[in-house]
Parts: sequence; C-alpha cells; structure tokens
Amino acid sequence: MSSARIIIEPGSRLPSATRIAAIPGPFGMQRGGALPAIEVAYETWGTLAPGKDNAVLLFTGLSPSAHAAASPQDPTPGWWEYMLGPGKPLDTRTYYVICVNSLGSCFGTTGPASPDPRTGKPYRLGFPELSVEDIARAGHATVQNLGITRLHTVMGASLGGMSALAYALLHPEAVENLVSLSAATRATAYAIALRSLQREIIRHDPRWNSGNYEHGKEPVEGMRLARKLGLATYRSAKEWEQRFAHKRLPAELVDKKTVFDMEFEVESYLEANTRKFINSFDANCYLYLSRAMDLFDVAEHGGTTEAGLSRLRLRRALVIGVETDILFPFDQQKQLAEGLKQVVPEVTLAGLPSIHGHDAFLVDKERFGPAVGQFLSAR
Amino acid sequence: MSSARIIIEPGSRLPSATRIAAIPGPFGMQRGGALPAIEVAYETWGTLAPGKDNAVLLFTGLSPSAHAAASPQDPTPGWWEYMLGPGKPLDTRTYYVICVNSLGSCFGTTGPASPDPRTGKPYRLGFPELSVEDIARAGHATVQNLGITRLHTVMGASLGGMSALAYALLHPEAVENLVSLSAATRATAYAIALRSLQREIIRHDPRWNSGNYEHGKEPVEGMRLARKLGLATYRSAKEWEQRFAHKRLPAELVDKKTVFDMEFEVESYLEANTRKFINSFDANCYLYLSRAMDLFDVAEHGGTTEAGLSRLRLRRALVIGVETDILFPFDQQKQLAEGLKQVVPEVTLAGLPSIHGHDAFLVDKERFGPAVGQFLSAR
Repeated sequence: MSSARIIIEPGSRLPSATRIAAIPGPFGMQRGGALPAIEVAYETWGTLAPGKDNAVLLFTGLSPSAHAAASPQDPTPGWWEYMLGPGKPLDTRTYYVICVNSLGSCFGTTGPASPDPRTGKPYRLGFPELSVEDIARAGHATVQNLGITRLHTVMGASLGGMSALAYALLHPEAVENLVSLSAATRATAYAIALRSLQREIIRHDPRWNSGNYEHGKEPVEGMRLARKLGLATYRSAKEWEQRFAHKRLPAELVDKKTVFDMEFEVESYLEANTRKFINSFDANCYLYLSRAMDLFDVAEHGGTTEAGLSRLRLRRALVIGVETDILFPFDQQKQLAEGLKQVVPEVTLAGLPSIHGHDAFLVDKERFGPAVGQFLSAR
Repeated sequence: MSSARIIIEPGSRLPSATRIAAIPGPFGMQRGGALPAIEVAYETWGTLAPGKDNAVLLFTGLSPSAHAAASPQDPTPGWWEYMLGPGKPLDTRTYYVICVNSLGSCFGTTGPASPDPRTGKPYRLGFPELSVEDIARAGHATVQNLGITRLHTVMGASLGGMSALAYALLHPEAVENLVSLSAATRATAYAIALRSLQREIIRHDPRWNSGNYEHGKEPVEGMRLARKLGLATYRSAKEWEQRFAHKRLPAELVDKKTVFDMEFEVESYLEANTRKFINSFDANCYLYLSRAMDLFDVAEHGGTTEAGLSRLRLRRALVIGVETDILFPFDQQKQLAEGLKQVVPEVTLAGLPSIHGHDAFLVDKERFGPAVGQFLSAR
C-alpha cells in the first residue's frame, strides 16, 4: 500500500514530478530523539517490473533535490541529467529509478526548516542530531511505501554514497547491489576540518541568530562564504589552473574600490557560482547535513570497519573514485573496495583520472557514464 | 654608512635583537603611490667578513617576524631555529645572516598598522597597494644600509621565496645565489581563490569596519576563521589523517550546547592553533601581504616568465618543494627550476617527500636541513 501523495506546501511550490511519501512516526533517530512523523520527497523514472526486481534507489549529495533528471511531469533538466534516462547509463527503459531528497534537506523532505507538527513552527535547532543512517532509513521507508521489498541497486555519490552504504548495512536483505561514487566508510580528518570551518562561518554570521533567522533575513553572507569554501573542496586545483591560471578579469568588470576587490577570473567564478546556491538552500539544513557527513563511520556498525562491512549481504558492488578528489581521496575508495571484497562476491573498483575533483560525478560524463552503465548492464 | 638604530615604538616593545633600518623616502611602490619614508625591522646573526662576501638575506613567509633564531641579544627561540645558527644548515660561523620583517607586516617594519608620519595616525587602507617587489626593494635598501653591495645568497620560503626571487630580478648584480623554498614564479588560481576567501572572511567581520578597527576591537573572529582556512592550506590532508583520523575528543572536553559544537580532535587542533595567531597579527597587514602573494608574477618583468627570468645574473640556485604542498604545488617548483636552468649555470631541484604540506619548511628539519646545508656548504 502506498501513501504517496502530492503536497504543495504553503509558500513553496514543489515541481510537479515530486511526490511525497508520508511516513508515520515516531521516527526514531540514530543518535537519540525522534520525529513525530516524516515526509520524504521523491521522484521516479521508468516502470516497476511485475516482479518488482528492477528498482534502483538513488541518494543525493549534500545539496541536490530529488529532481535528478527530466521527466514528462517535469521536463526541466535535473542535476544528473546525463546519467539517468532512456538509453542512458542508468537506463530507465530497464530500471525503475527512485531518487529521494535526503532527510534533513529542504526540498520537500522533513528537515530543520520544516514545521514541527507539534508546534506549527519550524524545527530549526530543535531538530534532533542527524545521521547518515537516518537518511538511509527514511529512504528505506519510502521504498517500502512503494511496495518494494528488495532493491536491485542502491546508489549515490558523496553523501549519497555514504547513505547508500548505510542502507545496505541497516537493511542487508533489502538490497542486492551497491554503487558508491566518490564516497567512503567515514570522513577524513581533513574533510571534517573543512566542513567544520564552513559551519563556523555560517554560525558566525550575526543573521544566523542561533538558527532563528526569519524569512528574508537568512544568513546569506555566511552561506556565501561557506559555499565558496565548499566549492574549493568540490573541485580541484588542477582544473582551476587549466581554466583560470593567473588570468585577470577584463578591466570593465573590475571595480576596485579597495586594493582587495576582485580582479582575477577565479575570484569572479567563485562569486558567480556561489550566488546560484545561497538563495535556494536553507542554512540550518546545510549545517545538519554537513555534520552528518562528519559523523558517519561504518566502524560504529560492529566495532571496526571490517566488522561493520561484514553485515552486508550484497551480490555485487561498484566503487568509483577520482584521483583529484581532496574530500574523499582515492585512497578511501581503495580501502572501501578492499573491505567490500572480504564480504561481497563481486567488487569492481574504478579510479577515474578526472581533473574535476570531488564533483567529477556531476560533470565528467565521459568517465562516469560508462563506468556506471557497464556495471548496471551486466545484470 | 648605516643608519640602523633601535627604536621602541610607544606601546609595542620590540625584542632587543631587532634593529631598525630607517630608509629615507619617498619610497615609490611598484603598483603606484609612495611612502614618505620606511623603516625595516631586521635581525642579524654571525659576522660580516672583511670582504663583505658572506651575507645571506632571508625573507620570511606571510606571518613571521625577523626573529628567525635565538641570539645572545634575544635567546627566545625563533621561527626557523633548526635552520639557522652555529653549525646549523645556514651556518652562522660561516655566513652573516640578515632576516628582514617584510614591508607591509607589523613586527617593526612599516605597514598598514604603522603611523603615517604625515598624519600621525595608522595608514590602514591608506597604505598603497603592496607588491612582492616592494618587499624585495625594502630588503635591498636594508642590505645597502648595512654597507653590503652584493649578497652571497638571497633566500626565503613561501612569500619569502617570492620576495627572494623578486630581489634577484630587480637587483641582478647584487646577488650571487638564490634559495627558493616552497615558492613559485606566480600564484596558482587555487591559491588565489583560497587567499581571496580568507580576505573576504576578515572583511566580512563587522569589526573590520573597512579597516578602521580600534585597539581592543580588532576583527578577531574574522581573523580566527581566516587563519583556520589558512592552516588547511599550509598543512596536508595526509598529515592530519595520520594525526587525527576520525578520533573524538575526550568526553570531558566536549561541550555540546548544539549539535554543531566540536567533538573531533582535528577541530580542537584548529582552534588551539588559531588562537596563538590572532592576537599577534594585524588584520590589515594580513590582507595586504596576502594580496601581494596573489599579484606576484615573474612574467610582469619581461612579458613572459622566461623573459622575466632572463634578467637574472645568478651563479647557482636551489629550488626546494614538497609533494604534499597544495598552495605551491611541486609542479610549480619544477617549472621554476626549468626556467632557471635557461639562465643560471647551476640549478638544483629538490622534491621532498614530506607529509607536512606547504609548512614543511618550518617543521621537517630532517629533510629541509640537509638540502639547504648541502647547497650552502658547496661555496
């Protein structure tokens, strides 16, 4: 029985392809506390086979919505347009694909910006501590809501890869294959440091106001600076050197009121890229999701990483990483693949020589497309 | 004739080993404007030979003072204690070493925090745009003040390496050898981006107040956050992973008022390391010196990097870099060494497998010491 329904929140119009799974509560959280109930925004592509054996669940990175690709209901391009669709690597003529907006996010799924039904006001910092496992369990409840008991594949990149791995750990019998892109069994100290600093920058914005900012008075300056730092961790020095090197902006674009105003192309790129983001993402949601990435650790599922991974009942796994990724370095992909090999019959590790760093999965379709397509076509 | 003298500024006691070279003005600046006069704080070690042919000029990175090492006048440890002293790689039994506090800094040399003699008030943003070439020329004036016409060696790390290179470009007949540590002919786009963001963070602190902060009301929060980002560019992911991995702080040190408060060792390390810095360095000076690093480009000395380097009249050069450096990556060291080889009879390139990143020259004495010592002992 599916209780999926379309909900239009007051003041926030969801794209028409987005559906909402209403999950009855209480929804207990991994690190304590519970939500009275949750809603999960999701989109689907393709057709569920009569045997319900062709479902692929896709978790997203920190910032995307469930709109991974265009569909008849919403023809606007999604965030993974090249990967997902008829005849594409994740072929929706074969697979029934479900993409969920993560628990804790702000694109239709319950998160810190959602109204607490007990008060009618946003949760804000009253939202319980968020874990990757909570995101995985919200995804699992959504899949169950759709009447699917076992996934063909769970997959995701970055935070989405951690969520996919958590799904396979928490519901080992409910998934056959795993695709992990640019993710890991836990964060590195360096990744924690750089995310921790982003969160401090946001919290240092006076408008953050301990999470109690009002509509129209969001901490956009803190978000802008944090996003720039985020971008520096998502891309690579090599890519920026090729694109920008030491190039100056054209004189007519330089407005040097002080000696510190921007005059290099790379500074202008950061500024433009940041503006797109800060008006669409809620600051508290960003803080919660960012911290969840720091906290995730497969070793918590058994005492050691190996013991945690031994819970898995997968048949096949694909681990993809990128040599220029500083957030989830390729060494972590190798470690994940080595660990999986102890318990999963068939494990493929792909190290891609992309210059695009952590975000390569979003842009480097020539490398990521074939790697995923090959895995999924070998049923 | 030397006009060096000891000056004690009102309210700021200089260590007793620090001397001041008073350089008469106007001191014209590379990118326009002039300072009415400048003072350069410096320290010396060893004895100038009768032929004045054993002088080594040392430029510093962005933040140190001229106190590179202990001396009878100031026995407190300096910032490069392992490198400099009797029997050390830069052997003060052989060499007469001069270390200058950079123009634009705040440890005795004229900079944005110094009083403008025309008004009696600090320059603040009235300080003209600062270039690495200005730092080099202030160093050269100091050397001239000491009656030295030709240096045995000019050397420096990071910004100091850029300053040393600028010195050799601007005063080709006045220097015989160059030692460049973890520096380059120009900044990468990535380094510009990360420094630009540090400057934005400081300028976004309301207490910065367009540079017009008062004593006791400095923008310490902005400096704290910028310094944390700086640290992430000075060290390496590999080092932090070895030291901190996913380790939590002991429970008694965790004060979780919100879900975002620090609980990982790496977060605590960043906090502790930052506190040391923010009370000693002036924010405006930091902004000027940081921007000078972005702007430096050897190509401005001839149209191309090659043409710029062709001005050099060096006999020998040593270029040292570190494989884990993300701020001045080893590729840049190779390019610098290749460029130098076109015009310098003897060039040595040393790539050190240190895990300490850009700051390795400060801490990795086992690798940097011998590399420098070998070059300087082969007179």
